[in-house]
Amino acid sequence: MTRYALTYEFDGTPFQGLQRQKHGPSVQQAMEEALFKVTGEQVTMHSSGRTDAGVHAIAMVSHVDIEKDLTPFRLMEAVNAHLRPNPIGVNHCEIVDDDWHSRFSCIGRRYLYRIVNRRAPLALAKNRVWQVAPELDVDAMHRAAQSLIGLHDFTTFRSTMCQAKDPVKTLDRLDVEQVDGLFGPEIHCRVAARSFLHHQVRSMVGCLRLVGQGTWREEQIAEALEARDRQALGLNAPPYGLYFVEAIYP
Amino acid sequence: MTRYALTYEFDGTPFQGLQRQKHGPSVQQAMEEALFKVTGEQVTMHSSGRTDAGVHAIAMVSHVDIEKDLTPFRLMEAVNAHLRPNPIGVNHCEIVDDDWHSRFSCIGRRYLYRIVNRRAPLALAKNRVWQVAPELDVDAMHRAAQSLIGLHDFTTFRSTMCQAKDPVKTLDRLDVEQVDGLFGPEIHCRVAARSFLHHQVRSMVGCLRLVGQGTWREEQIAEALEARDRQALGLNAPPYGLYFVEAIYP
Repeated sequence: MTRYALTYEFDGTPFQGLQRQKHGPSVQQAMEEALFKVTGEQVTMHSSGRTDAGVHAIAMVSHVDIEKDLTPFRLMEAVNAHLRPNPIGVNHCEIVDDDWHSRFSCIGRRYLYRIVNRRAPLALAKNRVWQVAPELDVDAMHRAAQSLIGLHDFTTFRSTMCQAKDPVKTLDRLDVEQVDGLFGPEIHCRVAARSFLHHQVRSMVGCLRLVGQGTWREEQIAEALEARDRQALGLNAPPYGLYFVEAIYP
Repeated sequence: MTRYALTYEFDGTPFQGLQRQKHGPSVQQAMEEALFKVTGEQVTMHSSGRTDAGVHAIAMVSHVDIEKDLTPFRLMEAVNAHLRPNPIGVNHCEIVDDDWHSRFSCIGRRYLYRIVNRRAPLALAKNRVWQVAPELDVDAMHRAAQSLIGLHDFTTFRSTMCQAKDPVKTLDRLDVEQVDGLFGPEIHCRVAARSFLHHQVRSMVGCLRLVGQGTWREEQIAEALEARDRQALGLNAPPYGLYFVEAIYP
């Protein structure tokens, strides 16, 4: 058995999420089916992160154990060929140690959340960003976001479906900034932590939008955090603006 | 009659091009139908540029003459509402002088051509960039491109269907550079001229690809130009990597 780590990009639009689901197509199912076509083996893929339906990945990292003897390049090329027409592209493949684990060895995860703040309908970035029509104060969003940095009980920003035992997490970074996108200005929320709760990034970004449009005072982010109550959540941002950007390993 | 100038973005994927076509949907048809629903008037839209099927626009500029009295903002909002679900978004609308013309008053056009140089299939940028697998030498492409700058007979880089009377044009800029895209590295070709021949940008980029992958020597770009013969064309780049970026007015 050889353990291969795969790094891949996917468009989350047609999938029910990364993990296998009974009620619709998933990235995991597409990947495992492609791997079966290449190797004849029924493998179970493990991944550094989970993503909701509609969430994208620029560089998801997963691993699989395979009996068949293949170079990483051959495996990557064959999997990519069999993945078509699924919007998944494997960019990197390498052999790793048997005790290396895409999820448990991962010491950091980074996400990007993209917002386009304009009235005109999206043409080129449809299903790729969250369109928000009311004018947003990006500096206020960034300032308010800083109250979430550090070790906190993130119960407010956690889905009621979250399976994590402990709602206490350390948030390393949440930067909100205006950037020049290829198709016009965008607001990027760059988020980093060792790990996240279910819906945590989307819940934080949803509440920051309320600050940006003046519905919430900046201090309400800290107040919502302190409430440790899902009822204190203002808004959950939609999945299609969210990207899994990087899994970090020692 | 009031003349309105509209600036809009579109995803060219579902269209047969900007101009009305007998054999399929066009951006012009979608825009004129939306304008009819708003005003009850059968207007003819004039545009700063023409684009082929599959070519995108970040900021196309067109104008229409309308009897109905509407503020530019109301017109823009109503047109955007009636354009759905077409992937077209009007970003700006203003009233212009009766002798202002989106095509004839335009003194400069800018295009962007996006290439992604990798083997892995495209997931997030599908239909948005030209994927090229062989490794490209970006510096060689840029150097070769400079022989196209200035006043030349561009017959080699012109579609046999081109309706322009004169194949002589002045190319102001053709910069090829590696950039950090949101989903990974990209090669951007930035092109500017007062006006272009049909397929000129795609033909120039197609030949530059041949230089980039080493199939053509750098000097062959200048040789192809001097040939003034469509048969000397190496390759026409596909439409889906091309974006109309800006129309410039005095």
